[in-house]
Amino acid sequence: MTIILDAMGSDKYPDPEILGAIEAVKVLDEPIILVGNEEIIRPKLEQLSPGNSLISIVHAPEVVEMWDKPVESARSKPNNSMAIGVQLVKEGQGDAFVTAGNTGGAMFNALRVLGRIKGVQRPALTALFPTQKDKCIVLDIGANADCRPDFLLQFAIMGNIYAQHILNIEKPRVGLLSNGEEAGKGNELVKETYKLLEKSSLNFIGNIEGKELFGGEADVVVTDGFTGNILTKGSEAVAKLITDTLKAELMRSFSTKMGALLAKPAFAKVKGLVDPSEVGAAPLLGIDGLVFVGHGRSDAHAITSALLLANNAIKNNLLEHLRTDIANNLSIRKGLFR
Amino acid sequence: MTIILDAMGSDKYPDPEILGAIEAVKVLDEPIILVGNEEIIRPKLEQLSPGNSLISIVHAPEVVEMWDKPVESARSKPNNSMAIGVQLVKEGQGDAFVTAGNTGGAMFNALRVLGRIKGVQRPALTALFPTQKDKCIVLDIGANADCRPDFLLQFAIMGNIYAQHILNIEKPRVGLLSNGEEAGKGNELVKETYKLLEKSSLNFIGNIEGKELFGGEADVVVTDGFTGNILTKGSEAVAKLITDTLKAELMRSFSTKMGALLAKPAFAKVKGLVDPSEVGAAPLLGIDGLVFVGHGRSDAHAITSALLLANNAIKNNLLEHLRTDIANNLSIRKGLFR
Repeated sequence: MTIILDAMGSDKYPDPEILGAIEAVKVLDEPIILVGNEEIIRPKLEQLSPGNSLISIVHAPEVVEMWDKPVESARSKPNNSMAIGVQLVKEGQGDAFVTAGNTGGAMFNALRVLGRIKGVQRPALTALFPTQKDKCIVLDIGANADCRPDFLLQFAIMGNIYAQHILNIEKPRVGLLSNGEEAGKGNELVKETYKLLEKSSLNFIGNIEGKELFGGEADVVVTDGFTGNILTKGSEAVAKLITDTLKAELMRSFSTKMGALLAKPAFAKVKGLVDPSEVGAAPLLGIDGLVFVGHGRSDAHAITSALLLANNAIKNNLLEHLRTDIANNLSIRKGLFR
Repeated sequence: MTIILDAMGSDKYPDPEILGAIEAVKVLDEPIILVGNEEIIRPKLEQLSPGNSLISIVHAPEVVEMWDKPVESARSKPNNSMAIGVQLVKEGQGDAFVTAGNTGGAMFNALRVLGRIKGVQRPALTALFPTQKDKCIVLDIGANADCRPDFLLQFAIMGNIYAQHILNIEKPRVGLLSNGEEAGKGNELVKETYKLLEKSSLNFIGNIEGKELFGGEADVVVTDGFTGNILTKGSEAVAKLITDTLKAELMRSFSTKMGALLAKPAFAKVKGLVDPSEVGAAPLLGIDGLVFVGHGRSDAHAITSALLLANNAIKNNLLEHLRTDIANNLSIRKGLFR
């Protein structure tokens, strides 16, 4: 098993990637290929881990930066590290691709090179949300602004497979994000999707709202890419507003500063809730290949987590399970068998 | 000027309402009519403020409870305190109606009795969101799950008037909630609405995301009722997740407890961010009458804030401004004059 890692993905590339890869090969004892500017990466790697036989480098002269427009830059920089990385997966030189780069760029490159799983109408961006109990996978969080009910059904099927095989939940609870819990609540898309999910063989728990999502009542939450994106970015922004306000207020007087010092362990847990390094990365589901996208803010620890996650997905045959389940569902819907 | 107050609205009715009204008449020196079960209210009022000549009671035998379905209960309980309250406004016995009850019920009763401002296609539910700088008004947050671009244009016009006359912002910055800042980002509804807002005379600042909203970059944020509802409830739930986690972690050891004690003033500010009593209430915009809905969790202080807000809206002729602006905009759109 080989994992391909975009060495130019994170905000502080390539240091978190190199350090993260060095840690990961210690744990996994499997090869990792760093893709990026070899002139920059080679000396750093040699310095940090001389003669590491498990880590190799494939040169990519161009970089998709965080501020680049995904589609334009992928076109104008055909030799960027993402494009070459997914190409290596396509050619069978690696089993999964991991990047902490621009999510839109990753989706564009993955779609162009690897394409969709047969039968998948729209691949989805996903995110793991923290909850009161554990975590849940939310999709789509931005790939498809306008969706049809059958897209959302496929998101549910793919999220379900992910929750089963990667999050180890036997019968994932699948919720539909809506503006009210009762059946019949929602916009037209939600109302139509509700009917499809109800008829499916999924463990559909009905409409859910923010309270249930963050309360940990569902393992998979399905929504269109517009709403999912608003929810994701809104949640991040609220968390930032609260933590920024708290930080500023704690610095206001001697006694609050002392209090902050004493209460430090408690703040660490809250930081963990909104910290990308705990989650590592989220999959692009529906792409015919394993692609994981981490947060731009990823540090070395986050990169290692992402690589372990990718390894786990390879070992658990995530891609094969997705292919099979989508194919089965298509057959059922076409009435071929049941 | 008289304000009608639903005495049976908040989760802990009628105590917060009675106490809130007693405080408000001290400040305003204007009459307030409490609507609700007189048998319960009268003795409590007499006990707390004997012979208060500014507060009177109008009996309403039925109550719309928080767990009631808004439409069904409004129909099955025609003599509920909300229905009678808006009826008093309709009859000119009061200039504004304030309730901390079920928002859907308030909208239903207000629409049925007071109707829409002439020219308004869909009234909107609104919320004041806390931001890094101040506050912004977000609409629609739940009245209209499926919207057309012209509905959103009207939301923007009404939100703009509110921000001008109640939040005292001369030229409110109007943003369109989207999944990307660039023009051209968004779902079909957003893309079409963008064109209308661009052509309008509003101070349209373009698409905004959660970061800009909570960062305080806009005074008015427009969205459809489905997305707005997801954003509102999602934000509340994230805030709860963070504050619950923090509380639990602070109680974990002696030193964190000590820290919490010392840092108490800092936590108060964070609590203020998510505390309904600071805001008081939000208007139903587009209804042909002034109706303000507060949070179910309102305490006496929140009710007083809501009553002062309603008084402010009456004094500033909010309703008349809304009527005029909607009429003007209709004339412009019909090409009658410019």
